[in-house]
Amino acid sequence: MGKGRLEAFSDGVIAIIITIMVLEIKVPHGLDLAALHPLIPVFLSYVLSFIYIGIYWNNHHHLLQAVRQVNGRILWANLHLLFWLSLIPFVTGWMGENHFAAMPVALYGTVLLLNAIAYFILTRVLISYHGRDSTLAIAVGEDLKGKISVVFYAVAIPLAFVNSWFACAFYVLVAIIWLIPDRRIEKTLTS
Amino acid sequence: MGKGRLEAFSDGVIAIIITIMVLEIKVPHGLDLAALHPLIPVFLSYVLSFIYIGIYWNNHHHLLQAVRQVNGRILWANLHLLFWLSLIPFVTGWMGENHFAAMPVALYGTVLLLNAIAYFILTRVLISYHGRDSTLAIAVGEDLKGKISVVFYAVAIPLAFVNSWFACAFYVLVAIIWLIPDRRIEKTLTS
Amino acid sequence: MGKGRLEAFSDGVIAIIITIMVLEIKVPHGLDLAALHPLIPVFLSYVLSFIYIGIYWNNHHHLLQAVRQVNGRILWANLHLLFWLSLIPFVTGWMGENHFAAMPVALYGTVLLLNAIAYFILTRVLISYHGRDSTLAIAVGEDLKGKISVVFYAVAIPLAFVNSWFACAFYVLVAIIWLIPDRRIEKTLTS
Amino acid sequence: MGKGRLEAFSDGVIAIIITIMVLEIKVPHGLDLAALHPLIPVFLSYVLSFIYIGIYWNNHHHLLQAVRQVNGRILWANLHLLFWLSLIPFVTGWMGENHFAAMPVALYGTVLLLNAIAYFILTRVLISYHGRDSTLAIAVGEDLKGKISVVFYAVAIPLAFVNSWFACAFYVLVAIIWLIPDRRIEKTLTS
Repeated sequence: MGKGRLEAFSDGVIAIIITIMVLEIKVPHGLDLAALHPLIPVFLSYVLSFIYIGIYWNNHHHLLQAVRQVNGRILWANLHLLFWLSLIPFVTGWMGENHFAAMPVALYGTVLLLNAIAYFILTRVLISYHGRDSTLAIAVGEDLKGKISVVFYAVAIPLAFVNSWFACAFYVLVAIIWLIPDRRIEKTLTS
Repeated sequence: MGKGRLEAFSDGVIAIIITIMVLEIKVPHGLDLAALHPLIPVFLSYVLSFIYIGIYWNNHHHLLQAVRQVNGRILWANLHLLFWLSLIPFVTGWMGENHFAAMPVALYGTVLLLNAIAYFILTRVLISYHGRDSTLAIAVGEDLKGKISVVFYAVAIPLAFVNSWFACAFYVLVAIIWLIPDRRIEKTLTS
Repeated sequence: MGKGRLEAFSDGVIAIIITIMVLEIKVPHGLDLAALHPLIPVFLSYVLSFIYIGIYWNNHHHLLQAVRQVNGRILWANLHLLFWLSLIPFVTGWMGENHFAAMPVALYGTVLLLNAIAYFILTRVLISYHGRDSTLAIAVGEDLKGKISVVFYAVAIPLAFVNSWFACAFYVLVAIIWLIPDRRIEKTLTS
Repeated sequence: MGKGRLEAFSDGVIAIIITIMVLEIKVPHGLDLAALHPLIPVFLSYVLSFIYIGIYWNNHHHLLQAVRQVNGRILWANLHLLFWLSLIPFVTGWMGENHFAAMPVALYGTVLLLNAIAYFILTRVLISYHGRDSTLAIAVGEDLKGKISVVFYAVAIPLAFVNSWFACAFYVLVAIIWLIPDRRIEKTLTS
């Protein structure tokens, strides 16, 4: 079974998720800059989620390139990832509209954590199908970034109830780790 | 006539259907967990419909792989299926917001039934075009799962007025039947 | 310049148009059948527009198959068609929510007429690029259905102010003409 | 790394952006022409933004055709462009609903300016990857239109506070410059 439609369907779903988030930034009624003021937290949470979904699309793109074929289990592991990605617009909206209050920030981190787990499951299902010696298994490698992300989310979620900005700082940090090209981050961490 | 654009268009429509359902989970105004409480039935109905649309996409993917060419009748049989799929977000929202009341649950089942019929029509139109001896006809086979689904929906719809949770249990059961790989379910049913 | 992305982009836009129309069928608050009663005209106008957009996608699919290459003018003629198609959800919602009142029905027909004109322009631009002797020019042919459609819309629009149901009957008639395979309709009309 | 999925994902996002803008044209409650009257500025801003996004899709289409391969930096430069494009529906809605008041018109121009900068960055990243002698670098060339656009936006944004219609005239002018085929505009400007 080819991977073409899996890629096309995932692209479609991710494109819609990244775009409908902007619908949460409701057009205000006032016509001066002050009318935009309450939208600042909504906008900031939009920027963060846009980057996160961009990272997932990027990683998904790289991961699928090493894939040769797909089976039923892979299709479902992929749909499972798309399910958790589809909840990002909701938690983004809730976090933004409540000005980064503790509970919404913790839930945002929980959904990020569940996405990270879903992505991990997808890589495992793909590797078990392609073999431990496949290009895919080598490309995924140790997945240091993935492991760091999970640890950071696990720290950030309870931290949200102490200070929600600290939790947000962790989310931003994870995004930065993924944005830095692989070689540099690995060099930094192994040195 | 090639099948490429039929697949691309179907992928696009199904990707949008599966994603816009999440817009029914409206961002609440409160900022504690209690604010999320009324969203639980909406979320549960979202999960069920996400799995159903995932199953349809999966089956559509498999079905179209055996297809060689398409004609006007096939394009319309496919659009007919997409029409009923497009009503799933509406019935999902109605069922979720009314906490699985009898009438919304019955209508949900009715739309699932109409989807099953539309899918059946699509397979018939495809087989009549490719021939009874085609790989496609063999791949579709007896379509035991399809027949069981129709029977279960037909039982569940009137049952919703007795106890709507029993009806929902049938919908979940049908989803499970489709999620179990074909070989195991067939073995179980023929033994 | 290849036609691949033109098809992909058009498929994407048409898939979104056909799907977001369903968002006009707002989830009602009541939980019995009576709650669905006011949605009947909205649903009927959705069905009609779904069929119309299906027809346009079908025709677009056929038209583009005979196309070899595209240029800037073709890209814009195509975007012009997509623009008028994108207004169908709006006029569908207005017509449905106002129970097929005169003005919304007339505007619906006007948008259909503008779509027909935009489609006609697209075929002309394509033929002028591919040549009068091209497969494309032969495939488009006399475009009898297109001409009848324009006449029927032109009759239906003023008729909406006399009796809006008569106008709707014309819109349904045009849809039926397009749904009947070409050979039969041509035979009927030339006999 | 191939460019296929980059194109597919961009097509998806741009298709959604161009289509969800129409959701800003809310279905009115009245059933006569007067009910449509307040929608005229919303409609006009929709037309302008539709043309702008059409121009971006067109240019993106042309740009990517000369591209051979993509890397991580290109993927992010492309996502950066899609981010600013995704804000066009918001500023379009704000400008339309406030009848082209000064601040919304200035913000609209600012988002257009940021889109122009994001597009410029994308072309630079692509050229630095493909080389200064590549077909891509030659195809992009002097980018006279791009430079004029930035100057016109920079003039229009402060002008919006003097007279917002003058600013809009500049936005329309930039759109016209892009719609005129390259040869004619270059001839005009160099003569």
